[in-house]
Amino acid sequence: MKVFIEPIGKLINQFTKLPGVGSKTAQRFAYEVMNMTQAEVEEFADALVRVKKDVHYCAVCGNFTDGDVCEVCKTRDKSIICVVKEPKDVIAFEKLHEYRGVYHVLHGTISPMDNVGPNDIRVKELLARIKEGGVEEVIMATNPDVEGEATAMYIASLLKTLGVKVTRLAHGIPVGTDIEYADEMTLSRALADRKPL
Amino acid sequence: MKVFIEPIGKLINQFTKLPGVGSKTAQRFAYEVMNMTQAEVEEFADALVRVKKDVHYCAVCGNFTDGDVCEVCKTRDKSIICVVKEPKDVIAFEKLHEYRGVYHVLHGTISPMDNVGPNDIRVKELLARIKEGGVEEVIMATNPDVEGEATAMYIASLLKTLGVKVTRLAHGIPVGTDIEYADEMTLSRALADRKPL
Repeated sequence: MKVFIEPIGKLINQFTKLPGVGSKTAQRFAYEVMNMTQAEVEEFADALVRVKKDVHYCAVCGNFTDGDVCEVCKTRDKSIICVVKEPKDVIAFEKLHEYRGVYHVLHGTISPMDNVGPNDIRVKELLARIKEGGVEEVIMATNPDVEGEATAMYIASLLKTLGVKVTRLAHGIPVGTDIEYADEMTLSRALADRKPL
Repeated sequence: MKVFIEPIGKLINQFTKLPGVGSKTAQRFAYEVMNMTQAEVEEFADALVRVKKDVHYCAVCGNFTDGDVCEVCKTRDKSIICVVKEPKDVIAFEKLHEYRGVYHVLHGTISPMDNVGPNDIRVKELLARIKEGGVEEVIMATNPDVEGEATAMYIASLLKTLGVKVTRLAHGIPVGTDIEYADEMTLSRALADRKPL
């Protein structure tokens, strides 16, 4: 005999599709749902469906939006573009409440190993935005891994021919970390990029 | 400006209702949902709604079922009833694939502090089942906390007048644990309930 009846088993199975959720956690989630009211569960289900129906990519920057063009593209300083890999990187910057420019979401990084070339990510859309004029600086904010670095270098080389200033996020010791625990690559970059006090 | 657009914010909010899910995890879940296909998300939403619509309590034991009477009550040995607090406790026993009797889910334990008395949990339904006859043993499998113990004692006192054998799960050192790390209460119970070799 099965341990779970079919509807509960199905829901547990759905929860295990979420990142970091194993069968034990999924089971706890499913039993929590059983304790919700019918209205609460319907609201939950509705939020799931609506997020897929109402949210799509911004026609300008490629970030998630529920309109045609996202709020950031509509209201912010278009002279600075911060180039990121994914929409969730935008959230990381937005949480700072410091950055006043706009974004460009690549939706991936160049990775020959995975058969992802420059034409598979939103590079030409970025070039088109810059050719329209008014852009003074492009901040390359891809991850500091092999693919992220390669993508930043590639895009920087294209942008320089267009005469736009290209910068890269600083690498160094994370704030609050002991130097003792910093990895060699990070420490080496921190040393090379040292600043006068 | 809000960091999240409304549909994503709403979904994040729904995910935080699940046990142990904070805003950071909920955010990861929401972005995973964005990466699913429309069909996958609809299947997920459907599983949520169906679990609430199709699942209710078994008329006999009070466990979750999608029929009138659950599979356990239909097919198993009715002479032994294992009394548990919640439906998830049934799952713990079912995973053993050892227990061949039926269950009785109390849906709570007696707790005067929380204003939960014997009439607020499914005690009279248990007495009714026993009065119907054919029950030889009732295993009290409520949690070994104050409320669980009190509930087990209370029900045992009622059942003894009906002439049915009442047992309680053994307490002792968990298998695989060092005695060094066992708490005093557990060690004390293990010592008191020691068995001849």
